[in-house]
Amino acid sequence: MSVTNPSEFSTGPDGADLQVAANGQLRHLLTLRGLSRAQITDLLDQSDKFLSPPGTPVIRSQALQGRTIASLFFEPSTRTRASFQLAATRLGADVLNLDVNTSSRAKGESILDTIYTLQAMQVDIFVVRDASTGVPAFITSHTNGYVSILNAGESTVAHPTQGLLDLLTIRQHKGAFENLAVAIVGDIAHSRVARSAAEGLMTMDVGELRLVSPPGLAPDSATIPGARLLHDLDAGIRDADVVMALRIQRERIDDIDGIPGMDEYAANFGVSHERMKLAAPDAIVMHPGPINRGVEIESSLADSSSSVITDQVTNGVAVRMAVLSTVARTMDVQ
Amino acid sequence: MSVTNPSEFSTGPDGADLQVAANGQLRHLLTLRGLSRAQITDLLDQSDKFLSPPGTPVIRSQALQGRTIASLFFEPSTRTRASFQLAATRLGADVLNLDVNTSSRAKGESILDTIYTLQAMQVDIFVVRDASTGVPAFITSHTNGYVSILNAGESTVAHPTQGLLDLLTIRQHKGAFENLAVAIVGDIAHSRVARSAAEGLMTMDVGELRLVSPPGLAPDSATIPGARLLHDLDAGIRDADVVMALRIQRERIDDIDGIPGMDEYAANFGVSHERMKLAAPDAIVMHPGPINRGVEIESSLADSSSSVITDQVTNGVAVRMAVLSTVARTMDVQ
Amino acid sequence: MSVTNPSEFSTGPDGADLQVAANGQLRHLLTLRGLSRAQITDLLDQSDKFLSPPGTPVIRSQALQGRTIASLFFEPSTRTRASFQLAATRLGADVLNLDVNTSSRAKGESILDTIYTLQAMQVDIFVVRDASTGVPAFITSHTNGYVSILNAGESTVAHPTQGLLDLLTIRQHKGAFENLAVAIVGDIAHSRVARSAAEGLMTMDVGELRLVSPPGLAPDSATIPGARLLHDLDAGIRDADVVMALRIQRERIDDIDGIPGMDEYAANFGVSHERMKLAAPDAIVMHPGPINRGVEIESSLADSSSSVITDQVTNGVAVRMAVLSTVARTMDVQ
Repeated sequence: MSVTNPSEFSTGPDGADLQVAANGQLRHLLTLRGLSRAQITDLLDQSDKFLSPPGTPVIRSQALQGRTIASLFFEPSTRTRASFQLAATRLGADVLNLDVNTSSRAKGESILDTIYTLQAMQVDIFVVRDASTGVPAFITSHTNGYVSILNAGESTVAHPTQGLLDLLTIRQHKGAFENLAVAIVGDIAHSRVARSAAEGLMTMDVGELRLVSPPGLAPDSATIPGARLLHDLDAGIRDADVVMALRIQRERIDDIDGIPGMDEYAANFGVSHERMKLAAPDAIVMHPGPINRGVEIESSLADSSSSVITDQVTNGVAVRMAVLSTVARTMDVQ
Repeated sequence: MSVTNPSEFSTGPDGADLQVAANGQLRHLLTLRGLSRAQITDLLDQSDKFLSPPGTPVIRSQALQGRTIASLFFEPSTRTRASFQLAATRLGADVLNLDVNTSSRAKGESILDTIYTLQAMQVDIFVVRDASTGVPAFITSHTNGYVSILNAGESTVAHPTQGLLDLLTIRQHKGAFENLAVAIVGDIAHSRVARSAAEGLMTMDVGELRLVSPPGLAPDSATIPGARLLHDLDAGIRDADVVMALRIQRERIDDIDGIPGMDEYAANFGVSHERMKLAAPDAIVMHPGPINRGVEIESSLADSSSSVITDQVTNGVAVRMAVLSTVARTMDVQ
Repeated sequence: MSVTNPSEFSTGPDGADLQVAANGQLRHLLTLRGLSRAQITDLLDQSDKFLSPPGTPVIRSQALQGRTIASLFFEPSTRTRASFQLAATRLGADVLNLDVNTSSRAKGESILDTIYTLQAMQVDIFVVRDASTGVPAFITSHTNGYVSILNAGESTVAHPTQGLLDLLTIRQHKGAFENLAVAIVGDIAHSRVARSAAEGLMTMDVGELRLVSPPGLAPDSATIPGARLLHDLDAGIRDADVVMALRIQRERIDDIDGIPGMDEYAANFGVSHERMKLAAPDAIVMHPGPINRGVEIESSLADSSSSVITDQVTNGVAVRMAVLSTVARTMDVQ
């Protein structure tokens, strides 16, 4: 979280906004930064329409019939990839899953040449995950004007559909954002989940945003202006309406100042039933998954009635259906 | 084949039958144990309706339109996975193939959390293969009541759709089970194929069931009550109407008492044209595939008119269409 | 390119033509050798009908509805596999992608048993890539008469859909073949792309065909009768209407007589803006991809207005739609 220029991930070399078409509609989704409150609200409202009660048939349409979606994941993923695939399929699109680790990369092909190739095959929408910062914007600024790029996870800096599903889940359970205290707990410094959620929450005028981490995993204070940076979990959780635990990468623990192992991490930054007693009554617990049970979150808490983790997953499909529909509509009218 | 409790694989912690809904309809398919003769006959009758002559169009329907099937194979598989995928696709379902070895498992996610995630994405039916005994029942007892679990291969204990396709193939070629002598030959001890076929055949009141193996690969005598355990292939094949050779795992051969290598195994337990002269006239030869040609079965015998191996494969798709249709109907009326 | 018998790759053990049905229609596509000028022209004409302008909806039909296409790639591939998958999907077929490296091959199953299995599952069309010469014809001569085999890349000898897309691209940009000088540049000896393009061009009565390579990578002079073999790139490009650069395998460079490294290769056989000044005005530059930018082709030349590389990719989908439609029609009337 070392980048503070709000438009860095959504502007091309000429400074133009890459995400939004001339008519103001969303054309690509690279980051939540720069999206207006009205744009985010519209995406959340659309997402609501794709939700159906458990046990009832899923909402389906043919809004993307004839469209081809290619998913290009340069990092392994099950849930995000499956979520996008189901969203696309339920809108009638054709889906091309490319296992880029074992095919074109094995031949040394560049990302851009892969994109050019698929673009020439009349792929319409690219769902891209990459470990390097700037790849989605780089790709976007090099495409042909007929395609749309959706960021499905970018280094430590952006995961906009995750941010939207987090916002949707909070809105479902808590209503308006203005009166809420939200605590995000864990490795804030390296978390694209935290970053996108924080950016979205600030745009939605959240009452209070607390970023709680060990000192060695704190973000730059300028990254999310207006957020409170805390290093004490009790203080972070106290009276919070929403507590979002982040997944901790085991390989990062050894590097953390003062947190010599997973047990110490769990003891100091694990969200537990006991600690949740400090939070507001009816506070909800969130986690982007996959969970390290007993580390960043107590296992039984993840399965408790306070947990909205499975709602987040369900909402993820709806949010991706909303995003896919929106960019397809923008393409239609161009 | 060390487990002898008939209901072990299809009951939850409270002792309730996991497979069958309150209305008596099949809800999950975990094992052939505990299914009645009427239930199995019904599945075979439904399977017949999904068969079309070679060279004619496949039978298709939209019975599963709007349903999502996820295949979770924690062991490698081509044929069973492809068979389920084609069955689901030909019924109009959406199919999500998860390569669980290279994605979520790489992040250390538990099977149950993977299931919870996919369930939250409104996956309807899970097709699960796992090397550990009890995984399908464990998953089933932890799902939300809106999904169905189908066992696509479980350790050495159950492979119920394989058992059904074997029964269907025998019925096609031989009619009623009561007058038949069936010999299953090979590594009975470790074969989920043998186990499910044997359980199904006993339920269908097969005339005689012989389990033929080297002594070191024999099942516990209590596993399939009523089956004859033999260690001499000639005795096993004599006057048999059906001879089913099992795939031998090369890595197991070295451990077998008195069978020091593949050549010795082939000489003593390989099913050959010569040996089939001992069988009943018009006896059929079966194999679940993939074949080690020249080891458990003589290569030219596998391709001969006595062989019904490709019928087994064709029937496999029909059986899986019948099972998918059946559990989907059960879900519809709940 | 050591095989010179024109019919070797398209005849069965009995000498019968494997590719063409009794009624003269294309039944399998194994090689461009042996196809008549009329047959190739018909495939190119059909391909044209599957092309739509950039930014307009793709051409779709339900011509293959109810058909199942299995792609069996025993060599890694992104673009050819994706191209066939999109072609099949846009014609309404079901597609089964088999990752043969990690599944059945792991169990030691033979290619033929894999084919027999999928054939029994009522797969209609197999798209096969293999590193061994003769595999597509071998498979074809062992199938059941209800399926079709399409060669998606065979050792160093054939890549017929690539040959067709190259012909289509040349025809689009240059019209009739009779007056054209075409130069293919690079590792001719090991290139199935060069081989299929050369065979197709000779059948189409190309004005002049030049095969330009380092001496150590030259083809046998009898491979493409009538082609000129050259080792000097300037001479090869001079007044050419079409220059096709081939991908160089980095591991082959070290073996080339007199070409000690990639830099030397690029200097002597890299197609550049400077060298293209020797070619005819409006000459086009082609490459099958993936490109080693700066090696076999100057990077900016690949992206220039002379380059038709993305047209080749677009045409690849159209050609595969034409081939799939054609063999499906042949199957329909049998």
